[in-house]
Amino acid sequence: MPDLKAICLLSGGLDSATVLAIAKADGCEVITLTVHYGQLHAKEIESAKTIARYYDVENIYVEVPFQWGGSALTDKTIELPKDRDEATMAQDIPVSYVPARNTVFLSLAASVAEARGAERIYIGANAVDYSGYPDCRPEYFDAFQKMIQQGTKSGVGGCGVQITTPLIHLTKAQIIEKGLRLKVPYELTWSCYAGTETPCQACDACILRAKGFKTLGIQDPLLKLPHVKS
Amino acid sequence: MPDLKAICLLSGGLDSATVLAIAKADGCEVITLTVHYGQLHAKEIESAKTIARYYDVENIYVEVPFQWGGSALTDKTIELPKDRDEATMAQDIPVSYVPARNTVFLSLAASVAEARGAERIYIGANAVDYSGYPDCRPEYFDAFQKMIQQGTKSGVGGCGVQITTPLIHLTKAQIIEKGLRLKVPYELTWSCYAGTETPCQACDACILRAKGFKTLGIQDPLLKLPHVKS
Repeated sequence: MPDLKAICLLSGGLDSATVLAIAKADGCEVITLTVHYGQLHAKEIESAKTIARYYDVENIYVEVPFQWGGSALTDKTIELPKDRDEATMAQDIPVSYVPARNTVFLSLAASVAEARGAERIYIGANAVDYSGYPDCRPEYFDAFQKMIQQGTKSGVGGCGVQITTPLIHLTKAQIIEKGLRLKVPYELTWSCYAGTETPCQACDACILRAKGFKTLGIQDPLLKLPHVKS
Repeated sequence: MPDLKAICLLSGGLDSATVLAIAKADGCEVITLTVHYGQLHAKEIESAKTIARYYDVENIYVEVPFQWGGSALTDKTIELPKDRDEATMAQDIPVSYVPARNTVFLSLAASVAEARGAERIYIGANAVDYSGYPDCRPEYFDAFQKMIQQGTKSGVGGCGVQITTPLIHLTKAQIIEKGLRLKVPYELTWSCYAGTETPCQACDACILRAKGFKTLGIQDPLLKLPHVKS
C-alpha cells in the first residue's frame, strides 16, 4: 500500500499529466481532480478523463463555470493573441489569465484532501514559461500553503496538506524530458487554447509546447496521430 | 454613484444578511455571491435569493457540490448534534465543519471581484460564536488576504481586493443589534442546519440564533411568521 495519499489537479494538459506521473512515482495513492471552469471548449477535459483512465486513478470532476468572465479562455468576446514570441509573452499578464483560477482549483483540492485524508496536493504550475501568471509563482504557493494551514481542521490540528509543485522551476523542455522518462502518454494530452479539431499551433500554449519538444529534438506525439495535422 | 464595488458572500443566514446591509451602509455597490456547496437542503439558498431581491442587488449563484463529503452538512450519514450548550460546542471542531468551505467561497469571490473590478469582499464570518471553525478566525483571514494579494493580477499589479469581516469579533446578539439598526429583514433569513419546514431549534445554528435574540429580549421575527411554529 502507498504511504501517502495525494490529490492531483489534472487539467488534461502536458504539465498536469507529467505531475500525475511524478505523484505516482513518488509512491502516492492518487485521486485526480478536474475542474471545468467554463473554458470555451472541453477538449482538455476529455483529455483529463482519458489520462485518469490510462493511469487507472479516480477522477473527481467538478463544473464551476466562471460565468463572470474576465479571461479570453472563458469569454469569447476577448480575442486570444496569436503567434507571439516568448519575449512578448513575458511582457505582461496575458488575456488568457483567468482571475484566481489556481486559487479556486487549490481550494477545491484542499477540501477534497481534507475530506479524503490526503497529505499532499500536486499542481503542475510552472514559473519559468508563462511567468506572467501571478498564481504560478513560488511566492503565491508559499502564501497559499500558509493560508490553508490556518484554514483547515487538518492544518490547525495536525500537519495539514502540503502543496507540491514539482514543475515550478523547470522549463517546458525539462518537464517533457522528465515526463518521457516516466513514460507519460503525451499523445493523450491537450494544451491548445483554441477549440479547433487539431492544435492551432498559434496560441501561447501551442507555441510553448512546440518549443519544448523542439529543444529536445523530439516530435510531439500528439502531432503524430493520424487525425492531427502536423 | 457609490465609490466602491464589493462582492458580498450571501448564504441566506442571519450573519451574511447583516453583512450585506453593512456593505450597503458602507456605501458600496454590492454584488452578492451565493454558493450551493451540496448542503443537504436548499432552504438557505432560497433565503439568499429572496434577500438579494429584497435589497435589489445582483446575485451570482454558483453550484459546486462538495461530492467528496467530510461534513454533516453535505453527508446525510453523519448525524448533526442536537441540544448542545455553548461550552460543549466550543470543545472541538464540530461535524458541521465543511472542509475548506470558506476558502472555496472566498476564492470564488476573489475571482468574481477581479473580473468585475470590485475592491472589497465582505464575509459574515464570526470568531466569537462558533470559534471551533478554523476558517472563521482572524489569523485565517489575514493569511487569505496575503495569499490573494500574491495570486491575483489586481493584487500583484495594484491594491488587490480587501477581505472585509465586519462581524469577526461580535457576539450573535451584537450582530443582531447592528442588523436591526440597519433594518435587516431577519424574517427572510434561514440559519437552521436541518431541512425541516420550520427551524428545528435543536441544532447549533438554531441555538446560537435563539440565544442572540434572547439576550436582546426580542422575538426572532422568523418565528413570528404564521407558517413557522415557535
